[in-house]
Amino acid sequence: MAAEHFVLRGKKIVAIGRNYAEHIKELSNDAPKEPMFFLKPTTSYLPSGGNVQIPRGVTAHYEGPSALSLVSPSKPTCLAVELGLVIGKTSRDVSQAAADAHIAGYALAVDMTARNMQDEVKKRRHPWTAVKGFDTFTPISSYIPKSAVADPDNLTLTLKVNGVTKQDGNTNQMIFKIPRLIEHVSSIMTLEEGDLVLTGTPSGVGAIVPGDRVECTLTDASGKQLASVGFTA
Amino acid sequence: MAAEHFVLRGKKIVAIGRNYAEHIKELSNDAPKEPMFFLKPTTSYLPSGGNVQIPRGVTAHYEGPSALSLVSPSKPTCLAVELGLVIGKTSRDVSQAAADAHIAGYALAVDMTARNMQDEVKKRRHPWTAVKGFDTFTPISSYIPKSAVADPDNLTLTLKVNGVTKQDGNTNQMIFKIPRLIEHVSSIMTLEEGDLVLTGTPSGVGAIVPGDRVECTLTDASGKQLASVGFTA
Ligand SMILES: [Mg+2]
Ligand SMILES: [Mg+2]
Ligand SMILES: [Mg+2]
Repeated sequence: MAAEHFVLRGKKIVAIGRNYAEHIKELSNDAPKEPMFFLKPTTSYLPSGGNVQIPRGVTAHYEGPSALSLVSPSKPTCLAVELGLVIGKTSRDVSQAAADAHIAGYALAVDMTARNMQDEVKKRRHPWTAVKGFDTFTPISSYIPKSAVADPDNLTLTLKVNGVTKQDGNTNQMIFKIPRLIEHVSSIMTLEEGDLVLTGTPSGVGAIVPGDRVECTLTDASGKQLASVGFTA
Repeated sequence: MAAEHFVLRGKKIVAIGRNYAEHIKELSNDAPKEPMFFLKPTTSYLPSGGNVQIPRGVTAHYEGPSALSLVSPSKPTCLAVELGLVIGKTSRDVSQAAADAHIAGYALAVDMTARNMQDEVKKRRHPWTAVKGFDTFTPISSYIPKSAVADPDNLTLTLKVNGVTKQDGNTNQMIFKIPRLIEHVSSIMTLEEGDLVLTGTPSGVGAIVPGDRVECTLTDASGKQLASVGFTA
């Protein structure tokens, strides 16, 4: 089954932006009327425990849901801890009512962005692919089978850098809920088994430098930890 | 071998923008200092002979290399005929000298864009994924084995809409040559066997409406046709 092995076999990563109200306030962005998203290549996956490869001349940051911050030099780019939905079967024009049946499981992910490509980005109005698509720029947890998650709309996401909490949010703060995300994306492009949908990130921004240690957790309402991701910059 | 079956097995499409000098002039854009690119999902492939599915409420256009035109309402978006490079093996940090060995073959492709998402696009500064990622928005030829192409830097690309020529260019007009494209993309993200790199489009813009017939050809310097793509809107 490809869903369990989504890191090796999945074809695409669809990353939703601006999906947490507080984070949008933080970035002074308007709330979108419908979900916005972009693609990351699956070659950006980094299994938990690895090292983020910071390319020469690039400052890596953890990245919130809107890389619109990239076009404002006064705002640092950031790193995002996000709930990922692992698609279980071919999904095209899926209704919200049918969406849940298309999810095989979950994963905890981090969406990394290269900050000092910011000038290029401004010039081009074309930020997404290069600044978010580097190899190792999507650290990822183990696969979480759906049966382990009682309520995906009430999960706590945390991110710490060198032991200091930078993000602490809950999926109940999402503007567009999971069924709406599946509906919207699948109205534009077919989702296939093993594809990953990143659902956006709560508030919290920060930067990392080589040597920094990042730890993220996903916890349910009962306090049970469902997944973790750790890596070194 | 995955390269031959890239439409089914490939994981990503890397599309280079603004790579033909005349087309940049046409769009009043500055020539970029390095290649720019974005991702299209492989679910957007449409084998030649098919029908482009124009989503409800969307006007489909053929698209030149810079969707920057999307942010200028006075400029129509357009459809691009492009030479595609089919990657033959894992490519990371490939030098220009080594680039050719990473190409297994070629294909002729069309890069489609949805025009009336333009307003959303302007608001978001986030055009690429949704407007170019619809299912069927990358019509594609059969695989062309490398042995059939003596000189990839001297191939003629044509595109006709309802029999009228809209694009007629040659790959010798590329700003960034094929080895430079492979070098640049592979410095950011690993290219895998079966990935497709679209190399940009020559000048020529136009729009299509349902019922229009599009025909594209790829011809070498001797006049031999190497591939064709045809589809109906
Ligand atoms: Mg992809
Ligand atoms: Mg994100
Ligand atoms: Mg193009």
